[in-house]
Formats: sequence, structure tokens, C-alpha cells
Amino acid sequence: MLLDYIGDSLCFGREPQCCLRDFVAGRTEPCYLYDLRHFTERYRCFRSAFAGLPHTIHYAVKANAHPVFLRRVVELGGGADVVSGGELQRALDSGVPPERVIFSGVGKSHAELRLALLSGIKQINVESVGEMRRILDLAEALGRPARIAFRFNPSVDAETHPYIATGFRSHKFGIDAEAVMTCLALARQSARWVQVVGVSLHIGSQIVDVENFAEALRNTRPLVAALREQGFALSTFDVGGGFGIHYDTGDEARELENFAHYAEIIRQGVQGLAEEILFEPGRFLVARCGVLLARVEYVKTTPYKTFVIVNTGMHHLIRPALYQARHRILPVVRRAGSGRTVDVVGPLCESSDFLAQGIELPEVREGDWLAIADAGAYARSMASEYNLHPFPDEEFIVE
Amino acid sequence: MLLDYIGDSLCFGREPQCCLRDFVAGRTEPCYLYDLRHFTERYRCFRSAFAGLPHTIHYAVKANAHPVFLRRVVELGGGADVVSGGELQRALDSGVPPERVIFSGVGKSHAELRLALLSGIKQINVESVGEMRRILDLAEALGRPARIAFRFNPSVDAETHPYIATGFRSHKFGIDAEAVMTCLALARQSARWVQVVGVSLHIGSQIVDVENFAEALRNTRPLVAALREQGFALSTFDVGGGFGIHYDTGDEARELENFAHYAEIIRQGVQGLAEEILFEPGRFLVARCGVLLARVEYVKTTPYKTFVIVNTGMHHLIRPALYQARHRILPVVRRAGSGRTVDVVGPLCESSDFLAQGIELPEVREGDWLAIADAGAYARSMASEYNLHPFPDEEFIVE
Repeated sequence: MLLDYIGDSLCFGREPQCCLRDFVAGRTEPCYLYDLRHFTERYRCFRSAFAGLPHTIHYAVKANAHPVFLRRVVELGGGADVVSGGELQRALDSGVPPERVIFSGVGKSHAELRLALLSGIKQINVESVGEMRRILDLAEALGRPARIAFRFNPSVDAETHPYIATGFRSHKFGIDAEAVMTCLALARQSARWVQVVGVSLHIGSQIVDVENFAEALRNTRPLVAALREQGFALSTFDVGGGFGIHYDTGDEARELENFAHYAEIIRQGVQGLAEEILFEPGRFLVARCGVLLARVEYVKTTPYKTFVIVNTGMHHLIRPALYQARHRILPVVRRAGSGRTVDVVGPLCESSDFLAQGIELPEVREGDWLAIADAGAYARSMASEYNLHPFPDEEFIVE
Repeated sequence: MLLDYIGDSLCFGREPQCCLRDFVAGRTEPCYLYDLRHFTERYRCFRSAFAGLPHTIHYAVKANAHPVFLRRVVELGGGADVVSGGELQRALDSGVPPERVIFSGVGKSHAELRLALLSGIKQINVESVGEMRRILDLAEALGRPARIAFRFNPSVDAETHPYIATGFRSHKFGIDAEAVMTCLALARQSARWVQVVGVSLHIGSQIVDVENFAEALRNTRPLVAALREQGFALSTFDVGGGFGIHYDTGDEARELENFAHYAEIIRQGVQGLAEEILFEPGRFLVARCGVLLARVEYVKTTPYKTFVIVNTGMHHLIRPALYQARHRILPVVRRAGSGRTVDVVGPLCESSDFLAQGIELPEVREGDWLAIADAGAYARSMASEYNLHPFPDEEFIVE
């Protein structure tokens, strides 16, 4: 297990594990701690699952944009999936070769597309007819041909929080088959400035029911067939990311079993679609490799509830407030005896600032430390300085 | 009106208004624009409403911590309500005299309380027995007596979004009468190091039904009476903030009428409670004085919806996603003709990134600008760099 007690002490990461009691000694402020070895292991696990299938892993930078992760991805032969000019620049600055960068997102500005074209990235995933026109104009103006893929909306109503479902017809993401054909006609008119290389999908995030992916792939086949009829053979087919982890348990076995199922579904679903399959995993690679460490400031018992007030909160991990996400919380040093039902809350001046509500926790006291599990993805990347609390440090366990 | 069309051009702020068409000329990135004159006017409006009542206005820094607002508050004779060491330092750095600073919040750390004591601030609002103990220990260790008030939880179930209601018994905020008495006993034992100056309340934010405030004050009277019986006459009574604005309309008349009602309720409710009444307004002073200006990147029409995709989103204004808040959105240049129903969404790669859903908007096109109204409070202060978009600039209209 990635988070495990040895005696009363919580240890974290791959072997040899980091004793969190030692790690927090002398600290007072909250901190993200990442195990780069686990990230590497997950990357290799992903790659192995698709052995034999020509593919490239494009790490979803939005999950966690720390350069250490990006450099590791490059060392492992992978690339980056970026969704803004800032992420593109971060990837380039971290050593990701432009020919391994994919650019997704519904709102690409002129400046962002200019950077993408001048950098010569691998592929721009086009999300609207308007974007297609903009890319053509820019490519011609800059004298830099664009490589593009159509981000298809497969109209799958994925089972996840509505805020992170992205592949249904009423979502802002992707385009339908008709719009793809409009874009294709535009591309044909400007064949010198645009090369259509593929189709991309992304149906959402934190999707555990892998049948959603199968459905998305099924819904995409007619489009690929129609493109072939038009004489467009795809170089790349981008299946996006979105595979979900089991936040409720530290036991990765079930998750990896589900991942094997995911891999099987993808392998079947992408047969014959393109020369190269692209993946955009984020959460699967990086979520579990991080913990958010927080100090207990006060234990406040009222006639109605017990609050464990810590020095981190929604400003450093907004997922509980925004998506009703449940992250496991474990004391760094576990006290014997019976636990109690508590809310773990932060210092911010609003009731949304909770990390967990109504969870069972062993007894904790002022000055104790808690580890909030699976905080590698969408924690620091969504953090704010609300109430003017500084961003926590980010520390790494490397080899 | 603070946001008003002259012909087809949207103008903003007090007279002479700023023509937003001119303001955005040459810009490409989103921007917060604040009218300091309106902020000043609101401050004076607040002060007038309580003329004759000995009181001090402590601006709630969490609403918007820009130093320009803090310096203006100081010029106007007000102080600051801070909720972290970072906000306290920002207030001091902006010239707020320590004797005009109140420190609230449930999670005050050792370092934060040390800064408060060494700075000699006006009042620390104590939120738990644990905090009372910590303050006494620190005050003695530093040789700096503390001035404290008890943050009482009046158990009012205020009508607002549950995330910003803070005065009910099941909330993390404040203490009940029994805990107040425990704190009082502790204070008596260390009378040299602590001076009990008052009682404080704060029942939540964005509360429009002013009857909630009346109820909170009624529920607090018995506590004040009990403290008197113990020989403690209050110097200060802090009624907190939380008065809500009418986001749904640009017509401030109804809001100011409700504010007059609020003032009346407070005046009646605080009679005889203390020598000085403290207020902690944030939103009322600063919300309306800001607009978030955004450029339309794409207008994306699908068979199901029309999306106006702009270059700002939940990273710069999370209130719609987090609290289902509705901010008015107005084109900077208004086109003639019929409007349509649209979602105004941002560039972030998740479906939570919307600014408005299903609103009526006049026709807009790529390159147009929109003004998102009432973005002075809890916009920039809650902003993140999610997806690595930079923070927008903040510009001011001054005298």
C-alpha cells in the first residue's frame, strides 16, 4: 500500500517508504509531498498495458504542472497534453520536445495558437469551426502549416460528477460529425496550411465505469469511416484521458484490475482506427503519488459536532467543496483507542472550507499531523491564495 | 446605474463613467476593473447609515485584498477585518494602523497569533476554547497582553448558500454560551495577559433577509447579560458582515432600501450592548465596484446549445461554479437585434467552468468583449492559475 502504518507511524510511497513522522518533524506549514517513483511506476504500468499497440502517452499537464513530473515524462519517452499557452510554455521549458505536445481546449486564443504553430507542436485538437478558421488564418499568416485533429463529441453521458463530464452533446467540448465535415472542407480549401492528422476524444475525468469509453469509441467509428470515405486516413487517434481512480480505498488492486479492463476495451475499440494511438492520462499517473500534509491547529468539540481544524483547506484542495470528492485522511501518528466522527475543516472563513465531513478518525490532538491521500492531481493545480494563505511547498521523494 | 449603456456602449462606474469600449481597446487579456469612487461612496453610505452610533468599519480584507482598497479605507478612517497572518501583514503593509485591525477565523496558528500580539492589534475574535488557551500562553510568553472578543455562534440558520452560512450551531464558527463562560474563566485566571473587550458575531455572507441579523442579535442578548452579571462590560460589540447584494439587478435602489432596513435592525438590536459597535463589511463595499472584462474567443453553436467561449472563467470567478451564483453579463458594445439563449463559458477543460448558463444575451461575435458585473468581491481573492492561465491584471478608476 502506498500509505501504510508501520506500528503507529504512517509511511508513504514506494519502498523504501518515507516515514511521515520524520518528514513533518520541525515543520509547521502544510506541504504537498510527491513520490516520483510511484509516478514512474504508474507511467510504466500504463505503457505496459498497451505494449504492442503503437501509442504515445501525453501526460495531462493540468493535473499537476510541476516541472519535475514533466521532466520525468520526457525521460520515459512520453509527451504532454496541454490546454493553454501557459501549459504549453511550461512543457517546452521543462524539456518536452514540441513534436510530443498536443494542444486541447475550447478557448485557444490567437496568442496561444501562434505559440503552438511557431513551436511546431505535434497536434492541435480542434474544438469548433471557429477555431478551425482561426488556425487556418494564423498558419497562413505565419507560414507555418498546422497539424490538427478533430475533437469529436461522442455524446456519451459519462458517469462522473457533472462538473467533470465533458463528452455529452450538451457540453462545450468537441464537435459533432457535421461540424467535423465542415472543418474538413475548410482544411481542404487550405491544404497547404493544414494537415489533418487525426481524431480526438475526451469524455470526462474520474470515470470508473470503463463501459463509457467503449461507448465513446463505438460512437466514433462511423466518423472515422466517413473520413476514410473522404480520403482521409488517420495518423493519430487520441482517446483522451479520464480513467478514474478509487479514492475511497488505498488498495490499488481493484483500480489496477479496472485499468486492465480499460486497456482491453481501448485495445478492442481502437482496432484499425489509426497508425498511432494517443493517450492523455493525468489523474491515473499523478493522483496517488501525492499527499497533502496538514497540521491540526485545534480540535473543537461542540454539542453538535467535532471539528478537526487543520492548516490547509479548500484553498489547497478544492475537490471536496467543488465536486463533493472524498479523500481519505489518515493521522501521521495513529493513537490507540476508539475513534470518533469528525469534520476535517480548514481555516478559511466559509463553510465550504472542508476536507471531509462526518468521517471516522482516531483521536487527534493539536499539533498532530494528518495526511490527505491522493492529492497529487487537481490539488496544487487548482489551488488559490484565498484568505491570503501562501501556497504550500511541494516536496519530492525521488529515487 | 453603475453599468449603463450610452447608445450601444457600456459605461461603468460613477460619473464621469468609464467607456468600456475605450478601455478594452488594444487589450487582449481579461482584466478586473475597479471603480474606487464607488467603493468610497459605499463606505460613506455605510458610515452615514450608522451616524450617531459610535462605530468603526473594519473592511473584510478577504473580499478583495488589493492595497488600493486598504489604503482608501484608512484614509476614510476605517480599519480591517483580517482572517489570516497573510491578510494581517497585507493590512499593516498597506498602512492600516494595528489598533484598527480585528483578527477573525477558526484556525489561527501560533505564527499568526504571534504576529497579531506583537503588532498590538485591536481585537482577536476567539473561536474556540483551544484558541483561548493558545492566546493566553502566547501573550504571557511574549509579554504582550491580548485584547480578545468571543465569537459567539448565535445558531441562526441564515438564508444563503450553505457554503457561506456560518452562524448555525452545526458550523465550525464561533462558540456557544457555555464555551464563552469557559473562556471567560480562563481569562480571569490570567487577567494580566488578557483583556476581554467584547463579543463578535458573523452569521454568514450574502444574506439578503435582514431578519436573520435581528434574530442573531436577539439570540446574543442573554449572553451579553450573563457577561455583565460576571462583571464584564463590553467595550466592543462586533456585528460582523454578511449583508447581501442583489446580483440579479444593476438597480441599486432596492439594495440600498434593504440596507436602510438592515441599519435600522442593527441600531435597534445593539442598543446598550457596548460602547463601540464594530462592522466587518466586505461584499457590500467592494462587490459592485468591480467588473471582470473578458474577450469572446469563439461563439460555438451546436444543435443543443450556443456557447459563448470567453478568455476568463471559473479560475477568475469561481462563484457561479461553487455557489451557483448568478452574475449579470453585458456586452461592452451592444448589437441591435434579437438576442439568444447562451451559456457563457471559459477555456478551462471541465464543465464546471461556466460564468452563466442559459442566459439571454444580445448577439455577440468573436473579438467582442463582455463585462461580468459585480466582480469586485470574492473574484480575484479566490482566483487560481488553474490550467496555468495567468491572473488577470487589476486596473482602477480613481478620482
